[in-house]
Amino acid sequence: MNKIFKLASRPQGLPKRSDFSYEEAPIPTAGDGELVVKIHFISLDPAMRGWMNDSRSYIRPVEIGEVMRASTVGEVIESKNPQFKVGDHVVGMQGVQSYGLSNGKGLSKVSTKLAPLQTYLGALGGPGLTAYFGLLDVGQPKAGETVLVSAASGAVGSVVGQIAKIKGCRVVGIAGGAEKCRYLTEELGFDAAIDYKNEDVRKAIRKACPDRVDVYFDNVGGEILDHALANLNLRARVVICGAISQYNESSIQGPKNYLSLLVSRARMEGLVIFDYKDRFMEAYADLGKWLATGQLKTKEQVEEGIENFPETLLRLFSGEKMGKLVLKV
Amino acid sequence: MNKIFKLASRPQGLPKRSDFSYEEAPIPTAGDGELVVKIHFISLDPAMRGWMNDSRSYIRPVEIGEVMRASTVGEVIESKNPQFKVGDHVVGMQGVQSYGLSNGKGLSKVSTKLAPLQTYLGALGGPGLTAYFGLLDVGQPKAGETVLVSAASGAVGSVVGQIAKIKGCRVVGIAGGAEKCRYLTEELGFDAAIDYKNEDVRKAIRKACPDRVDVYFDNVGGEILDHALANLNLRARVVICGAISQYNESSIQGPKNYLSLLVSRARMEGLVIFDYKDRFMEAYADLGKWLATGQLKTKEQVEEGIENFPETLLRLFSGEKMGKLVLKV
Repeated sequence: MNKIFKLASRPQGLPKRSDFSYEEAPIPTAGDGELVVKIHFISLDPAMRGWMNDSRSYIRPVEIGEVMRASTVGEVIESKNPQFKVGDHVVGMQGVQSYGLSNGKGLSKVSTKLAPLQTYLGALGGPGLTAYFGLLDVGQPKAGETVLVSAASGAVGSVVGQIAKIKGCRVVGIAGGAEKCRYLTEELGFDAAIDYKNEDVRKAIRKACPDRVDVYFDNVGGEILDHALANLNLRARVVICGAISQYNESSIQGPKNYLSLLVSRARMEGLVIFDYKDRFMEAYADLGKWLATGQLKTKEQVEEGIENFPETLLRLFSGEKMGKLVLKV
Repeated sequence: MNKIFKLASRPQGLPKRSDFSYEEAPIPTAGDGELVVKIHFISLDPAMRGWMNDSRSYIRPVEIGEVMRASTVGEVIESKNPQFKVGDHVVGMQGVQSYGLSNGKGLSKVSTKLAPLQTYLGALGGPGLTAYFGLLDVGQPKAGETVLVSAASGAVGSVVGQIAKIKGCRVVGIAGGAEKCRYLTEELGFDAAIDYKNEDVRKAIRKACPDRVDVYFDNVGGEILDHALANLNLRARVVICGAISQYNESSIQGPKNYLSLLVSRARMEGLVIFDYKDRFMEAYADLGKWLATGQLKTKEQVEEGIENFPETLLRLFSGEKMGKLVLKV
């Protein structure tokens, strides 16, 4: 059977199980030009929370009654599309279900030789590309500069920090809890880590960034963004990648310290990865190389059972996970 | 006698007369290398409010007991400096006083042939330069794009809008009251004006900017900034020049809609005019040319009497003025 989660209602605050409907349906069969993918891993991304809202964004909202949108990686089990054959591994956005029917559009073949399948949802997927272009294209770090990143042990943040190290920067990560901070400095090579759950973040940034912050890569918003703004260097770049602290709030907390942009002649800029489509190959080449040489380390936390999708999604917001969160179907 | 206003205490909220001390002193005399300027006009600028605070900024705070910092224009009445002679008109930052002693550093000679003296505190002074570099360098408007500017009838905003028109943009100004709005559209050639005191600003922006906003030049902050952010076009540029609505508040209102930077892949960037020193001549050449051809119109509201400095300063915050506010000594 195909196990499917559809959006049942638009969440108020944190998404609840009742915001989704769970359905079972026959495994789809391929028509002309189509293929069927058995989905092995479903990606859990903070952006999914935004897609549930009925508001103007960079992508249309998921409609009520539609399969919940999600990135996926799986294996072709039936194909009437000449570009795909049974056994191919493909990554795409086939949603929260165990089998996906596709006309091939938006699917890309991937190889398990370079990395395990789930890595194509993390460092070699959307999060890795977001880190790559967000840091290098928007943040434009130069060797010797200080790069600060929030949600630093997460799927995007961990790649941001490691690329910044590769580029010769001083790298400071903000994460929640001693274990994540230890992971940053001891396993990923960050120069310093700040535990926002147990430290005065503003003071800790000042201490860890004695030359102030040249690039701040923000995944969280809220007070941490304000603390970073208070510590900008002249001509700093603030990359707005996300605001996970705000996604479940009814009213967004705007950055009170935004006038630091004036004082420091700094820039705050957002990005959406879809804009970089024609440069994805460039990013994959670098990310793949760094993965092969060991300069880029990845960690996925694999949770089991598509039935647990709603509760697993909440781990993104509680922070009860390490690295990239994926659901094994 | 030299009439002098010094900073007496750091204001809480709106500056009061008691935040300044008024003193009279003998007119200074020039020592070797020095000159004495009889100040004719004192500039009243929103930035002055920030200079009164004891906080990190792009310039050191005015100290308690120091002559209040202000831009000035006047006439040399005594000189023992070979670069200046009696009768020269000079612009500088000689502060809120009727006579200024100087070693010549920071003073520039100006000519009354191109424009009256007070214009060197407005369109041909700091406000004009701020408009020029803020719009062209940070905002980077292209012909056919829509430029939105707040405090649009003010010293900076009015120049921003007129330069944007010269560059072929659709220009929409936000100002307070029907008279200012009429000034924008009927005298300065703006395509549309929004009266924030009598209109729903967000809806009015949507109506006046059917192709959304490509460049938003912000002088005010607060809710108007949020309304502009809600109407950004893809890859829009938001120029943070000031935030007059917030300068007297104990807590800054951050822009709740800052995630529009992500949705629209837009940029928010601050500027300080001092950074452009080596390009001032380029700006003066353009501004002077536009003034001469009539493409750039200026308006100064001249208030009389240095004794009225504290109350005149408040007109910046109440909006009871039109164009560039100056005080005739």
